[in-house]
Amino acid sequence: MLKLFVAKGTCSFASHIALQEAGIAYEAQRIDFTKGEQMAADFLAINPKGRVPALVTDRGVLTETPAILAYIAQSAPEAKLAPVDDSFAFGQIQAFNSYLCSTVHVAHAHGRRASRWADDQTAITAMQAKVAKNMGDCFALIEKDLFLGPWVMGQAYSICDPYLFAIAGWLESDGVDPADFPGVQDHMKRMEERPAVKAVHAWYEE
Amino acid sequence: MLKLFVAKGTCSFASHIALQEAGIAYEAQRIDFTKGEQMAADFLAINPKGRVPALVTDRGVLTETPAILAYIAQSAPEAKLAPVDDSFAFGQIQAFNSYLCSTVHVAHAHGRRASRWADDQTAITAMQAKVAKNMGDCFALIEKDLFLGPWVMGQAYSICDPYLFAIAGWLESDGVDPADFPGVQDHMKRMEERPAVKAVHAWYEE
Ligand SMILES: N[C@@H](CCC(=O)N[C@@H](CS)C(=O)NCC(=O)O)C(=O)O
Ligand SMILES: N[C@@H](CCC(=O)N[C@@H](CS)C(=O)NCC(=O)O)C(=O)O
Repeated sequence: MLKLFVAKGTCSFASHIALQEAGIAYEAQRIDFTKGEQMAADFLAINPKGRVPALVTDRGVLTETPAILAYIAQSAPEAKLAPVDDSFAFGQIQAFNSYLCSTVHVAHAHGRRASRWADDQTAITAMQAKVAKNMGDCFALIEKDLFLGPWVMGQAYSICDPYLFAIAGWLESDGVDPADFPGVQDHMKRMEERPAVKAVHAWYEE
Repeated sequence: MLKLFVAKGTCSFASHIALQEAGIAYEAQRIDFTKGEQMAADFLAINPKGRVPALVTDRGVLTETPAILAYIAQSAPEAKLAPVDDSFAFGQIQAFNSYLCSTVHVAHAHGRRASRWADDQTAITAMQAKVAKNMGDCFALIEKDLFLGPWVMGQAYSICDPYLFAIAGWLESDGVDPADFPGVQDHMKRMEERPAVKAVHAWYEE
């Protein structure tokens, strides 16, 4: 059975929702960042990067949200989470998810994890000060150029949707008002109504 | 015919080599960063992010290196650049490429593009000062945990190889000695010998 390592409020939420949508048997296991469990030897043996998500399969471990999401879509073709046999349409999905991963998630990480990129406190404070502007710019581009609506790729729900939802959930704490992006805000509301999202929320309450 | 927008010395080198390896008909077009062409209206109409690579296909534009590389592999199955029908093996390729895109490329970008993440010069200098350490850490992880050898994924050359090659080409200017990573250094030498790499180098000399 697949096993997904997750932490509350992180990008692992996207893979967690996708597994739930796919209807694949899986279990989720929490990594507690407040206890530094992501750097503990037993977790580093699973993911030497010390990050979530990590998906343990019977053939080995997969890391990186875009890779895990595509793997889930390919593993459950009947759930139609990505047009895996249409190289261009699949490419668009991957382009969207890669942008979230390499640019939007990274813009956000300069708030809480600025010390990855500089050691002195003045620099860290300066990076934190620019997070709202960068996240706002990213979401302006998403709203204007990438998001088709009602789902990210238009009429078909896909693996882009839980990923956008996970990252849009960071906007307020990053100092950005989701109401500035009506398409994204509407998307968040419709995501909250999905049974898969409710099930993952409920699992965290357990 | 496919058209790839590239700039010298950038991550677009990976997609350029992959197209050449795939044997697909394509043309490459240069964007001159010294003239700010990436922010010119005609290029922003192609890629509103103002970045290379961007691949124009007859169905629309694809951006983001991991997405473009996977698209090339799927479009030329006979070139065997990725095990596209094996969801786990394909997932490993995507995990590697996503790590390069979201962590390694980003670590490098804090050298020349630090102003993306903070405005004041002290912070920019502090970020630049940490690039060598972060790139060194990333390549230590690649060498130890991700790179199988002789190619990234072992015996089979794949879309991970030109991407690693493009990024490893930044090590020296980032203040890291490639000789610290013998597997990666050997990989760079063998990449240089490939006809596809020679052809792309020659195109830049034209
Ligand atoms: N590129 C990776 C990034 C994974 C990542 O940075 N995860 C964060 C949570 S959102 C984490 O595990 N951080 C723990 C830490 O930095 O110690 C992905 O998209 O999966
Ligand atoms: N996540 C994108 C990043 C693309 C990117 O940042 N490209 C750089 C060159 S390596 C660029 O076009 N920079 C131009 C600029 O920042 O103005 C990818 O992997 O394709």
